[in-house]
Amino acid sequence: MRSGTRIQAVMEDIQSRIAARTYLPGTRLPSVRAQAQAMQVSVSTVVEAYERLAAEGVIASRPGSGFYVAGPVAPLALGGIGPRVDREVDPLWLARQSLQADAHALKPGCGWLPPSWLYEEGVRRALRSLARSGTLELTEYATPLGHPALRRLLARRMAAMGLETSPEQILLTESGTHSIDLVCRFLLEPGDTVLIDDPCYFNFHALLKAHRVQAVSVPYTPQGPDVARFADALQAHSPRLYITNSAIHNPTGATLSPLVAHRILKLADSSDLVIVEDDIFCDLETHAAPRLAAFDGLSRVIQIGSFSKTVSASLRCGFIAARPDWTQDLADLKIATNFGGGRMAADIVLRTLTDSGYRRHMESVRLRLAQEMERTAARLQALGMKPWLVPQAGMFLWCQLPGGMDATALARTCLEDGVVLAPGNAFSQSQSAGDFLRFNVAQCSDARIFEVLARALKG
Amino acid sequence: MRSGTRIQAVMEDIQSRIAARTYLPGTRLPSVRAQAQAMQVSVSTVVEAYERLAAEGVIASRPGSGFYVAGPVAPLALGGIGPRVDREVDPLWLARQSLQADAHALKPGCGWLPPSWLYEEGVRRALRSLARSGTLELTEYATPLGHPALRRLLARRMAAMGLETSPEQILLTESGTHSIDLVCRFLLEPGDTVLIDDPCYFNFHALLKAHRVQAVSVPYTPQGPDVARFADALQAHSPRLYITNSAIHNPTGATLSPLVAHRILKLADSSDLVIVEDDIFCDLETHAAPRLAAFDGLSRVIQIGSFSKTVSASLRCGFIAARPDWTQDLADLKIATNFGGGRMAADIVLRTLTDSGYRRHMESVRLRLAQEMERTAARLQALGMKPWLVPQAGMFLWCQLPGGMDATALARTCLEDGVVLAPGNAFSQSQSAGDFLRFNVAQCSDARIFEVLARALKG
Repeated sequence: MRSGTRIQAVMEDIQSRIAARTYLPGTRLPSVRAQAQAMQVSVSTVVEAYERLAAEGVIASRPGSGFYVAGPVAPLALGGIGPRVDREVDPLWLARQSLQADAHALKPGCGWLPPSWLYEEGVRRALRSLARSGTLELTEYATPLGHPALRRLLARRMAAMGLETSPEQILLTESGTHSIDLVCRFLLEPGDTVLIDDPCYFNFHALLKAHRVQAVSVPYTPQGPDVARFADALQAHSPRLYITNSAIHNPTGATLSPLVAHRILKLADSSDLVIVEDDIFCDLETHAAPRLAAFDGLSRVIQIGSFSKTVSASLRCGFIAARPDWTQDLADLKIATNFGGGRMAADIVLRTLTDSGYRRHMESVRLRLAQEMERTAARLQALGMKPWLVPQAGMFLWCQLPGGMDATALARTCLEDGVVLAPGNAFSQSQSAGDFLRFNVAQCSDARIFEVLARALKG
Repeated sequence: MRSGTRIQAVMEDIQSRIAARTYLPGTRLPSVRAQAQAMQVSVSTVVEAYERLAAEGVIASRPGSGFYVAGPVAPLALGGIGPRVDREVDPLWLARQSLQADAHALKPGCGWLPPSWLYEEGVRRALRSLARSGTLELTEYATPLGHPALRRLLARRMAAMGLETSPEQILLTESGTHSIDLVCRFLLEPGDTVLIDDPCYFNFHALLKAHRVQAVSVPYTPQGPDVARFADALQAHSPRLYITNSAIHNPTGATLSPLVAHRILKLADSSDLVIVEDDIFCDLETHAAPRLAAFDGLSRVIQIGSFSKTVSASLRCGFIAARPDWTQDLADLKIATNFGGGRMAADIVLRTLTDSGYRRHMESVRLRLAQEMERTAARLQALGMKPWLVPQAGMFLWCQLPGGMDATALARTCLEDGVVLAPGNAFSQSQSAGDFLRFNVAQCSDARIFEVLARALKG
C-alpha cells in the first residue's frame, strides 16, 4: 500500500467513526501510537493523517493532550445549489442556469465555449511554471494597475489592431464584467441614461439595474447599431454612456462596418457620449473588424476585455484601456472597492498567452467554430428556424423561430428535458425578440439537443 | 547549450535587431531555414522561437509568406508607475504606497505580512497539484456561490469558532474588500449613514466614499467600540450599517470583549442595524476572541473574510457569510457586477488550507509575530513612542508619538528616506489620531527603519 493510501485509510477510519457517532464531538482520539498499532501502520502515517484532519477542521489539537473531534459541526446541505426553476426567465436566471448546470447538461444557450475547447494544456504548463517562480509572484499583491508585463503584452496586441495605447493606459481587473462595472461606477449617477443595443448581452441589463440607471436601447442591424435611431436616442435621452460589443456582437454575431463606426463616433463627439466597447471575443475573429477604440484613439471610447472566452473561465482577469487620467482614477476606484488585483491570475494569463502554442490553439478553435457554425445553422434550418445572419466568426447564431413561436415557453419546455436555451427576450430591452433564440454553436455538437428541440417545436 | 537557451538566443537575436531598428515594422524576417543556418541551430529551434515571438505580438505571420515584424508598436513607458508623492496623505495614497513600493522598500506602515512570511511552499504544492487536476477545474466558471468544497471547509472553520452556518449561507468573492463592497451595494443608498470605528482600517473610508454614504465614527476602546457613544450615534444618525473588525482590530490590535459584544448587539437589535464583521485576521489569533457573528447567529451580522493575510495576497479570494436569503441576493449582485467567480483561486486556497502543513505554518507565524511584537514595541518605546496597548496577537501596534508630534509630517520625511509609514489620521474619521502611527511588527525587522525614525523624530 502506498504511503498516500495508508494516510487516506487512517483518515477514513476516523471519519467513519465520527459519521457513525462512535466518536462524538469532544471525544479524544486514540493516541498516535495506539492508532498506529491498531491499524498496523507507522506512527508518521497517523501523524500525517491527524494533521490533515485537523487542517480540514474535522478534529482539533489541544497542546499536550492530543486530538479531539471538533464540533459542533453545522449540518451540510446535501443537494448543492440546484437550479431555481421557479424564477422568471430574466437575465440573472439565464446566467445562473449556465453557471449552475452540471458538466453533463446540454447548454446550447450558454455564452461560452465548452471546457474541452479551452486552452487547458497551456494553463497546465503555466501552473507548473508558476509553481517554480519567485516568492513575490506567489504571495504579494499586484501593483495598482496590475501585472506590468501583461499590460505591455495587451498594449502590443492592441497596437496590432491599430489601437495605439501605452501600458499605463491599461488597468487590469477581475473580469470583463468587473471592467464595465468600474466604468459605470466611475461615470454614472443613479437615474442616468445608458444606451445599449437591442438585442445585447443579457448581463448588461442586470448590470445597469444594479447601478439603478435607465437603459435605452437602439436596434442592432447587421452592420452595427441603427444610426438614425441612435441619433434620435441621443436627442431624446442625452445618455452618458453607450455600451456595446463591436468585434463579434453578442447575441447576433454581427460585425460593425467602418461606415457605421465612423458615424457613431461622430454622433458621440457631438453629444459628449462615452462609449464602452466590450472586446472579449477578439481572439475568435478571423478578419479584424473595425474597433471604435481604434478609430477614436481611446479619447471617448473605453475598451474592455477578458480572457475567459479563450484562455480559461476559471481564471478571473479582465482589463480596461482608457484615457491615461481615467485609468488612474479607475485604479483608485478599484483599490477602494476591491483592493489589490489578482497578480497570480494575471500571471497565469500572461504565461498562457505567450506560450508558443496559444496562436495555434486559437487557429484550431476558429476553424472548429466555423465548422460548427455551418453544421448548426443547417440543423436549425432543417427544424424551420431562420438565422438572422450567418456570422463571419464567433460562437453565436441568432435564430428566429417559425411562425412567431414563443421562445421563452420553448426554453421552459426544453429545460425539463435538460436542455438550457437562451430565449431572445433576455437580450432585448424592448422585448421585441420573443421569437428568437441565441445558439452557441460550440455547445451544439450533441444530436440530443436537436431531438429535444424538434419535440418541443412540435408540441 | 540547452534547447530552451538556444530558443532564447534566437528570440534575443531578432528582438535586438528590432530594437536597433535594423528590422523595421513590416520587415520580413529571414526564413526559418536561413536563420537556422546563420545561428547554427536546428530548424525546429527557430520555428519555436518565431512562434513565441508571434505569441508575444512582436512578430506576425502571413500565411504562405513567412513572418514579419509587427507594428506599429506603441511607445512603452519605462519608469513604471512610480509613487505619486504629490498626493495628499489620504487612504488611497496610503494603499497605493504599499501596493506600489518595490520589494526592497521598507514598509513598516504596510498592512500585510512580508512575502517571505506567507505560505509559499503550500501555494507551490497547490499549484502543482492543480496542474494535474481535471479539465473543469482549469477552464470552467465557478458555480454562483463559488467552490462548494471551500464553502464546506469555511462552514466547518466557523463552527469551530461557535458560529453555526451552512455552506449555502457562504458566498465566495474576489477579496475581503469586494465582500464589503457587495454588502454596501446590497444594503445602502447614496446618502445613507454608516458607523465605523475611530480609528478603523483606512480603506473603509475610501470604500464608503465610493458609495457616497456618510461615515460616522465611534471611538474605539481597548474592549471594542465605546458603547455609550455607539448608542448616541444610533440615536443621532439612524445608521443602516456598522462596519468593524472584531477579532484583531485594525489599526489598534484591540480585541472585542464579550460584554461589549453583547451590548453592541442589543443596541443593534433595538435599532435594526446591520453589522459587517470583517474577520480577515482570524488565523493570526492565539486565543479566539468573541465574534459578533457567533453571538448573533448570522441574523443581523454579516461576517466577511479573505485569505490574503495568511495564505497569499497574490490569490484573490474572499467570502461573505450571511442570512440564507441575503446570500442568494448577494450572489445575484455578484453575477450582475462581476459574473462568475474565481474558481481557480478558490481551488488553490482550498488546497493550501487543507494542506497538512498549513496549521504548523500558522503556528510559526503566530510565534514569530509575538516575538516581533515584543521587539518592535521595545524599539519604539526606546524612541519615545508609546503603544496604545500591547495587542494579544496580530501584526499591528498603534503608537503615539512623543509631545504631540505630527505623524503625517513625519511620514512625509521618512518616505524621502525610503520608509513607508502609516500616519494615524488616515485611519481616523474625526482626524483625532494626528500623533499616532500604525506599525506592522512583521515589517519592522530591519534596523534601518528605526535609524530613519530616530533621525526624523529629532529633525
